[in-house]
Formats: sequence, structure tokens, C-alpha cells
Amino acid sequence: MASKGLAIIAGVGPGTGASIARRFAKLYSVVLLSRTPGNFEPLVQEINSNGGKAIGISTDVSDPNSVKSAFDEIEKQFPDSPLAASIFNPAGGFVKKPFLELTNEDYAGALDSQAKGAFYFAQRSLPLLLKAKESSPHPPTLIFTGATASIKGSAQFAAFASGKFALRALAQSLAREFGPQGIHVSHTIIDGIIDIPRTKQWVLPHEDAKLSPDSIADSYWYLHTQPRTTFAFELDLRPYIEKW
Amino acid sequence: MASKGLAIIAGVGPGTGASIARRFAKLYSVVLLSRTPGNFEPLVQEINSNGGKAIGISTDVSDPNSVKSAFDEIEKQFPDSPLAASIFNPAGGFVKKPFLELTNEDYAGALDSQAKGAFYFAQRSLPLLLKAKESSPHPPTLIFTGATASIKGSAQFAAFASGKFALRALAQSLAREFGPQGIHVSHTIIDGIIDIPRTKQWVLPHEDAKLSPDSIADSYWYLHTQPRTTFAFELDLRPYIEKW
Amino acid sequence: MASKGLAIIAGVGPGTGASIARRFAKLYSVVLLSRTPGNFEPLVQEINSNGGKAIGISTDVSDPNSVKSAFDEIEKQFPDSPLAASIFNPAGGFVKKPFLELTNEDYAGALDSQAKGAFYFAQRSLPLLLKAKESSPHPPTLIFTGATASIKGSAQFAAFASGKFALRALAQSLAREFGPQGIHVSHTIIDGIIDIPRTKQWVLPHEDAKLSPDSIADSYWYLHTQPRTTFAFELDLRPYIEKW
Amino acid sequence: MASKGLAIIAGVGPGTGASIARRFAKLYSVVLLSRTPGNFEPLVQEINSNGGKAIGISTDVSDPNSVKSAFDEIEKQFPDSPLAASIFNPAGGFVKKPFLELTNEDYAGALDSQAKGAFYFAQRSLPLLLKAKESSPHPPTLIFTGATASIKGSAQFAAFASGKFALRALAQSLAREFGPQGIHVSHTIIDGIIDIPRTKQWVLPHEDAKLSPDSIADSYWYLHTQPRTTFAFELDLRPYIEKW
Repeated sequence: MASKGLAIIAGVGPGTGASIARRFAKLYSVVLLSRTPGNFEPLVQEINSNGGKAIGISTDVSDPNSVKSAFDEIEKQFPDSPLAASIFNPAGGFVKKPFLELTNEDYAGALDSQAKGAFYFAQRSLPLLLKAKESSPHPPTLIFTGATASIKGSAQFAAFASGKFALRALAQSLAREFGPQGIHVSHTIIDGIIDIPRTKQWVLPHEDAKLSPDSIADSYWYLHTQPRTTFAFELDLRPYIEKW
Repeated sequence: MASKGLAIIAGVGPGTGASIARRFAKLYSVVLLSRTPGNFEPLVQEINSNGGKAIGISTDVSDPNSVKSAFDEIEKQFPDSPLAASIFNPAGGFVKKPFLELTNEDYAGALDSQAKGAFYFAQRSLPLLLKAKESSPHPPTLIFTGATASIKGSAQFAAFASGKFALRALAQSLAREFGPQGIHVSHTIIDGIIDIPRTKQWVLPHEDAKLSPDSIADSYWYLHTQPRTTFAFELDLRPYIEKW
Repeated sequence: MASKGLAIIAGVGPGTGASIARRFAKLYSVVLLSRTPGNFEPLVQEINSNGGKAIGISTDVSDPNSVKSAFDEIEKQFPDSPLAASIFNPAGGFVKKPFLELTNEDYAGALDSQAKGAFYFAQRSLPLLLKAKESSPHPPTLIFTGATASIKGSAQFAAFASGKFALRALAQSLAREFGPQGIHVSHTIIDGIIDIPRTKQWVLPHEDAKLSPDSIADSYWYLHTQPRTTFAFELDLRPYIEKW
Repeated sequence: MASKGLAIIAGVGPGTGASIARRFAKLYSVVLLSRTPGNFEPLVQEINSNGGKAIGISTDVSDPNSVKSAFDEIEKQFPDSPLAASIFNPAGGFVKKPFLELTNEDYAGALDSQAKGAFYFAQRSLPLLLKAKESSPHPPTLIFTGATASIKGSAQFAAFASGKFALRALAQSLAREFGPQGIHVSHTIIDGIIDIPRTKQWVLPHEDAKLSPDSIADSYWYLHTQPRTTFAFELDLRPYIEKW
């Protein structure tokens, strides 16, 4: 019997990453990467209790050795599972500050977690995605999570926007190189506040004014299920009430 | 009992429009608009035979009186059906020519069918979409079909690109005005050759190198089903092998 | 002796058009096109009194016959003057209204004055610009004036943005077709309030918060003087204090 | 007597940087930063022999301590000169390779020289530019040199495009934060091959098919001389024959 496919989600906190993991766990085994085990442990337990298959690996995506270890572990634990989807969704690098107050660490941190992290993650994911072309139920998919700052460098966002612009450049370049090889590379632009535990207390003047993590996850799943005749590269998602 | 929802599709030939009609007919009554009855008649019959409900109305979207007549007819035939989705998908205005060979009619034709047509169609659709907010199963949706020429004015495409840029401007403006009123306005960028009867004989060097109309239709359906917390405005669709 | 070069400016009111005319009149004979003779008469007199050469022709750029007459008149009056620069700068089509209050005339008006007007103007200008390649002191230049609405379809700007997006599509297409033939086609994005008589009474919280028409004219002149090794296509201009 | 203004150019090889230095040396004292003294020494001599004032400082812009030393040296040597212009133009980080062949060093190198280098350079330049607001003959100016890869992530350009996208994000963010404080921040998109010693032997099918470094320098000078009523942020420059 063919092995179940695999999905790797980097950046799994209590928000979008968790929703994506739950969504992809309906069909695939899922691997959850986060620096802090506390971020994935309850989710691993939840998915496994519900009949899915999940593991978590403590990983710092901005450290190439940590990413290497994680993928070595994945290949050891799932030697026969085709990698159907690899999703890059870490939250790091967000900082809003007057430019002259940014530290070298602030700026490097945004590039490390968004750009370099995505680079290491993509370099490890792509060989596995290419190998899965025949066996994955849907075209093997690599999705990067962007933000408003992916296309607009606002005042006081020099660091975060640099990281997110760089991530988008990477995604475009990979879509153009690996699309013709059958890999679906996508980039999303999450333009608004996501409705997660951390933002629960932010009261907005309209109801439904925050992005639903489950709906974002549905979008990722939709992207994943597109056939290779009809790949979307970029998708912007925002609440109906958002100014843009 | 509540009336079934309604979807209106403007621009129904044997390609994308037909696929969209079939897809939306699974849940809604569908109204097909095309200048030529021959374009919608077989489809109307097909949908009605398969247990769906479809009518066709011969309409020239670039003529405001014709659009008015069509919507008057729709309201007469479906007085109690909430308008769940209105889709603007006409093919007109495509012309590729050295600029100095374009006629005034070529240029006006592209603006008439893409920009003015969309304007008339949107002005008639939006009051019905607004009225359907409580009764539509998904947020009432207005989708416009764009093309590569929506974001790039290539040489020899002055007329078509003018029409498609204008259409995108209209779509953006409506998304910003009617999004906060709960209407989901979207714009797609179809970047490649669509696999329709007219392009069947075009042999491309790779298989699956043409966009699938059914998959495009799935994308429109996906956009329609998004909740208002998580609206996508723009979606670019292309075959995996497409250069962009 | 070689004839002095020629510059045609379409859209000459008391603002940017007048400044452009004065700037180009330092080196060229200038032809000023405006629907209302009152718009160009004082300027024609001023330029001629100052040792320049100017004529005005009452022209409705949205009417192809009127544009034809104007160019016939230009060729009659300046049979030996190479057309060095042709600048499309009409103000028409601006309208801000809730979408459902826009009339068919509002929408058509924006397309007529911005898109169709530019089309007619470019079709008449380009053959003359091509003929001037050897004799123009700088590469023959065709510049289109855009606005914020050229790249953003804001709420209530459906008509104006449609016209300005279409104009930008036209400009891009012409740059790609005629650049390789040695014609410099450019598009500017004027992003802010211009300091003209009509806006004098608008008091803004900061000084220098409005665009200077003379500085805009300097930018057009700078674009015109670029050599063909180093053409700029697009230039965005805004006051230092502008939010964008 | 007021001190002559100062311009700092980071990235001075035999191409664009040298042309910019010569152009700005007509009005200002110039400081040339390059890792390799051989890059600036002949130019320093040339400018000083021609009646200008130039110094070179060996600087690695990707090293914050090296940038700090350079600016300390500048302030020591020119304690009374207002910083009129600071230009970031380093060539580093260019690499074209299949993605899976990129090394961690390739990717980090592009971010280091383009993004981090620009960050360190901007953090040191901006306090001096702000201080020069009253004394600089033109609004103090900070210009960043971009490339095609600043707006398009092409296949095999993942590293370079990441660096250039990040640089553009930084430039946008600074324009929005420091424009209202009177500093002119600009970004150029150099889209084509520059005519420099290294590219001399590349024979192209058309004459004038390479960008002229002197004309690029003229563009930078033009940007610098714009008044604060009329700042351009972005300028794309390409040879007339370039495909885009």
C-alpha cells in the first residue's frame, strides 16, 4: 500500500500554522516545526487523538543546521511518504520602530527568520517535493506566507518589510524555476489582523474584522489542490472591512 | 421555502464561461448572457436536463439598454432569488496589431466590451447583490475576469491592455467601496492559453500547457465561498509551464 | 538653416500644461491644444512676447476629427519643424462619486478624455515623432500625465481610475513598441495636489505641500533630454509631505 | 564662508559609481567608499587634479564596524560640510545559479551586501542628512541603486532578487518616514546592461544598447536637485532597445 503523503509546516503557533496543520492533517501526516516545543505539543496530541498523524520537531528555521537536523529526522521517520506540501509560515522578524532606533539585530533578525529561514527550508523541501511528483495526490506544493509588508514598505517597517519583500522575491524565483518542473509554488499576502489568541482582546469597530485562521488554511488547501494546468501564484487575503 | 440563489454569468462561450455556469449551477439557478444565443442555448439545455435551472438572455454588455433589458428580465423571472454571484467574463476587445494600424473602432471596441460593459453590468448587479446579503448562502460575489494584459501593456496590445487595465481599476475601486458593505469583489488574471475548442488545434511542446476551464471555474467557486473575514481580491492563474 | 523643433502640448490650462509649455518653449516652437481658447490665448501671447514661438489650436482630444484637424493645421503651419516632443496632459474625466451614482456619461467621459483622447493624440503624434528621429536635438519624446489613480483604484474613483489605468496601459504598450524605434515614451504619476490657481485657497497644514507645476515641467524636460541609452519610462512625483 | 557640501558614494568601481562621483564632484566634496582601494584611488586622483575634492575610504558596507569607521573618518575630515547626498550603489551579491546549487554563503552574501549594507549605510547617513537640511543647496538626498531584480524574481535569481527586493523595501520605508522630514529618498531600477569596462566586449546586435553610466549619473543628479514640493521616489532606466 502506498504511504500516506506528508505535509511540513514551519511556524506553528496557536494561529494560522495550527489551522493549516489541522487542515492538511485530514489527508496527510503532518510535521510541525517550531522553535518552542510548547507551540506544537498540544497540536500534535490533538491531531493524533483525532485519528491523524502528527509529529513536532523543535527547529530554528534561521539556523541551517537546525533545519538540516529537522529534515534528517523527517526522512528517518517518514522514509516512504511523498512530500505533498511544504509550508513556510514563521512569525519572526516583526518589528515596528523609527528607523534610527532599529538595532543591527532587529534588521538581521527580520532577514534571518523570513528570508534566510525560507531559503534553508526551500532548499531542503524542494528535492523531496520533486521526488514526490508521481506519488503526491496533488501537485507537490510549496507555500510561503506573506503580509502587507510584502508589497509595501511603510514607515517604521524597514526591517520587517525587507524580510517580507525578500521572501516574496524568493517565492517568485522558485515559482519560475520549479513551476515548469511540476512543483506548485505560491505566496500569500495576509493583509490584516488574524484572529488568534494574542489578538483576541483587540476590539475592532466591526464584527468579523479579523482574518479567520481556518479560512486562511482553507485557502492554502485550495492552492494545494489546483492541478498543474491552473496554478495560482499569489493570493491576497483580507477582512471585508480592511482599508487597502 | 427560501428561493434558490441565483448566479449571472456574462460572457458564456464554449470555454470558461460554460465551465463557470456548470459549476455555479450545482447550487444556484444560473442566467447566461451572451450576444449570440447559439453560445448559451446548448448549455441552457444541458444544465436543465441535468436537474439544474438555467436560462439564457441574448445581451450585448456594451449596450446599456441591452444590459438593462437583461436585468429587467432576470428580476421578472427570478423575483425571489437572491443574487449570490455575478460574473463578468466576456471575451470581446482582443486585438493584436501594430499601434498605427489600430482603428478607432478597435480601440473603442476594447474599452466598450471590457470597461463599459463591466461598468453597466456592475451597476445592475450591485443593488441585487446588496439586497442578497442576508439570504445568500455565501457572501454575494462579483468577479471580473482579467488577463495578462490586465497588468502588462505589451507591444501591439494597446487596445486590449487599455480595456483590461480599465477593468482592473473598476474591480479594485468596487472592492474598496463594496467590500466593507459585505460584497466580495474579485479580479482574476488568466495568464496563458485556455484549453477551449478554438485552441484545441494549437499544439504546445508540453502536455497540460493550457489552462483548464473547469479548474478556472473551481477557482471562481472557491472565491465565492470565502467568508467575509477572509476575502481574496486577486488571483493569478497560469499553467505550470507558462513563462511569466 | 534647420528649422526649430516643435513641441505639442495637449491639455493646457493655467497649471502644469502652461509650465510645460513655457519650459519647452525655451528651445522649441510650441503648439498648445485645449478645448477652450481662453486656456491658451494668454500663454500664447506671453510666449510670443518673450521671444518664443507659440500657437494655440482649439481642440477636443476626445474627438478624432478635432484631433485630425489640429494636426493638419500643425503640419501646415510647421511643415519643416521636426516634432521633438508631444505631451498628453488633459485634465478631463475626474469624477469622485459613490459608484451607484455614476452616470453612463461620467464613466464614458473618463475613458473618452483619458484613454481615447490619448489614443487619437498618439496615433497622430507618432508618425511625426518617427520622422523627427534624425533631426530632433533629443530623442523624440511622447509623455503621458498620470495620477495616483493610474495605479490605485480607490473607492468612488471607478471612472477616473478606469481612464487613468487605460492611459497607463497605452503608454506601456507604446514604450515597448516604439522605444526600440528610438522614440522615448514616458508616463508620470502625479501623486498629490498641484499648486495651481484653482487649488490656491486649499490651505494645507504644511508649507510646500503642493506639487510645483514648474518642477513637474522640469521633470518632463529632464525625461525629454535623456539619451536613448538611458530612457526612463515611469516617474512618480509627490510633495515630500504626501502620504503614500 | 559656508563649507562646501558633501556627497558620499558607496560602491565605486569603474562604472556607475565613478560617473556619479564625477557628477556630484562638480558641486560637492565627494567621499568614495569601496572595499578595494584600487577601485577609488585613480578616481580620487582624477577628481582632485581637476579642481574637485575627493577622498576614498576602504570600507566593507556589509560590516557595521567598517561603516562606522568610515563615517567617523568622514566626520573628522569634513566636520563642517553638510551632507547633501548619500548614494548606495554597491555591486555585490549578484549570483545566477539553479536554486539547489546556491550555497548558504551565496544567499547570505546577497542579503549582506544589498540589504544589510544599505541598512548600515542609511543609519549612518540619515542623521547627517537631517542635520544638513538648512545648509544643503538641494534637499538632502539618499539614493539606492536597484535593478531589474528589484521588482522581478526571475528563475535562478533567488539570492540576488532577495537582496534587491529587500533594498527596495528599505528605500520605500525610508522615503515614507524621512520624506516628511525633508529628506529626499529615491530608488532607481537599472534595467539593462551598463556600458562599463567589464561589459565592453559584450557585443549586442544594436548600437547604444547598453546604459550609459554618465547618463545614469545625470539622473541621480536630477533626482538630487528636485525641490521638496516635487520629489520622485522611483525611476526606471533602460536602453531604448531593451525588452521589458
